[in-house]
Amino acid sequence: LKIHHDCYPCFLQQALRAARLTGADEAQQHVILQHTLALLQNMQPDATPPEIGYQVHQFVHEVMGNQDPYLEKKRLSTQQALALYPKLRSMIQQSDDPLALAMRISIAGNIIDFAMKDQIADLWETVERVIQQPYAVDDTAPFKAHLNSVNQVLFLADNAGETVFDRLLIEQLPVPVTYVVKSKPILNDAVMEDALAAGMDAECESIVENGSQSTGTILSLCSESFRIRFETAPLVIAKGQANYETLSSVGRSVFCLLQVKCPMIGEDLKAPMGSIIAGYFGFHP
Amino acid sequence: LKIHHDCYPCFLQQALRAARLTGADEAQQHVILQHTLALLQNMQPDATPPEIGYQVHQFVHEVMGNQDPYLEKKRLSTQQALALYPKLRSMIQQSDDPLALAMRISIAGNIIDFAMKDQIADLWETVERVIQQPYAVDDTAPFKAHLNSVNQVLFLADNAGETVFDRLLIEQLPVPVTYVVKSKPILNDAVMEDALAAGMDAECESIVENGSQSTGTILSLCSESFRIRFETAPLVIAKGQANYETLSSVGRSVFCLLQVKCPMIGEDLKAPMGSIIAGYFGFHP
Repeated sequence: LKIHHDCYPCFLQQALRAARLTGADEAQQHVILQHTLALLQNMQPDATPPEIGYQVHQFVHEVMGNQDPYLEKKRLSTQQALALYPKLRSMIQQSDDPLALAMRISIAGNIIDFAMKDQIADLWETVERVIQQPYAVDDTAPFKAHLNSVNQVLFLADNAGETVFDRLLIEQLPVPVTYVVKSKPILNDAVMEDALAAGMDAECESIVENGSQSTGTILSLCSESFRIRFETAPLVIAKGQANYETLSSVGRSVFCLLQVKCPMIGEDLKAPMGSIIAGYFGFHP
Repeated sequence: LKIHHDCYPCFLQQALRAARLTGADEAQQHVILQHTLALLQNMQPDATPPEIGYQVHQFVHEVMGNQDPYLEKKRLSTQQALALYPKLRSMIQQSDDPLALAMRISIAGNIIDFAMKDQIADLWETVERVIQQPYAVDDTAPFKAHLNSVNQVLFLADNAGETVFDRLLIEQLPVPVTYVVKSKPILNDAVMEDALAAGMDAECESIVENGSQSTGTILSLCSESFRIRFETAPLVIAKGQANYETLSSVGRSVFCLLQVKCPMIGEDLKAPMGSIIAGYFGFHP
């Protein structure tokens, strides 16, 4: 997904929110805003929103010191999600189609996202909505077939707390899963600590870092070892908008699970805000 | 009111909305956004939001030709307001305190504002809310006393359609009124045509232009003849946020009537969004 004109004001809002969250005073906020204005003037025409977001957040880190401003929010999100875990697990176990329900529950967890707002919607309400809602993009049938033809899955995480919802899906996958988190904190994206706090080590063959500190998966910022995994994995599941934005045209097939929370992504997917998406992007398997 | 950091993203949104409303294609939108980024980088630290808005809209005019993109919206607003006029007038006439009610109705009309949104709220619902709502800033008592000590009023208009609601207030003022509109179209601000369409010529001693094409009242952009009126008028009533933003620290007392529709103005006034304000700013009479 390329940067849309409507992304410009959104980047300034994100810069300001990140600045304030790290305790920037008025003068520091000003420096961060001015830097963001310059970034927007000098963008490469094919940049994706997470690439600019990465540069904004890197600059905030430079000005404010390497903090992890979302640490408390991330821990709280994980706790809230873990509180729902037993109930969601028995719903899935009692379901006629546990895999289909687990996929929807993993998408419901994608509501946990502090990139654009400071508050998230009620988790349980979101679950109730998403388990009933028709998919705006529905490749779940080819996905089930695909799943039966592979011997492993590479699963790209999105946010802390959402990890617990991903765990419920991974429990239903019939093959070993490698779960991928960010190497360093960016917004409320899951890092190793968040995956472990969600209990992911009990369900996955391994948990690995992608080598980067950006949202989504910007391959040029990832480690060589991750890129090899990504290129060779027979099936990649990617959670959330930023993964869709960065991977929807990399030239390999990626199965994206997400909620549409940005009007520009909705326009790109021809799906209204609040839609749920389970679709292959890149070339079809 | 000085420019707040939160105004930066808002200016980009306004630039984009103005560009699209004048039919700008992607390339023209890009030019307008880039120019706005440069404006934000080079702002004077004491600039007010309407001053930057003026520069943004001037540039849109330069790129797209001198259009009046809000012409149809303005005419429609006036029609909608005129449809309510007889009912509002009899409400005022039957009221125990016609002046107080007319003041609230004039403030209700301030909901007509396309600066930040493309749609306005329902006019009648707004009237019903505003006639009951407590004032967040209430200088109506000194205003009434002030009104009895002057022999004329200078009334600074805000938007087309709101003019009809202002007319209902002006009918209740015991002294001759000069109604002031913008000289050229900017957003949906009232120009001479809009004042006449509201029937203002029947109620005012005169209708004059302020010499400028900016929202609010940027004295340095106004005509010499208007500035003299402004400086010498014994009582100035100013409608809307932009007049508050540009006149709240000019060094003469101005009686502002407005609804709070911008979070930064709300912060400045210590009043939540949706508040109604009837207050003297500058020095008190």
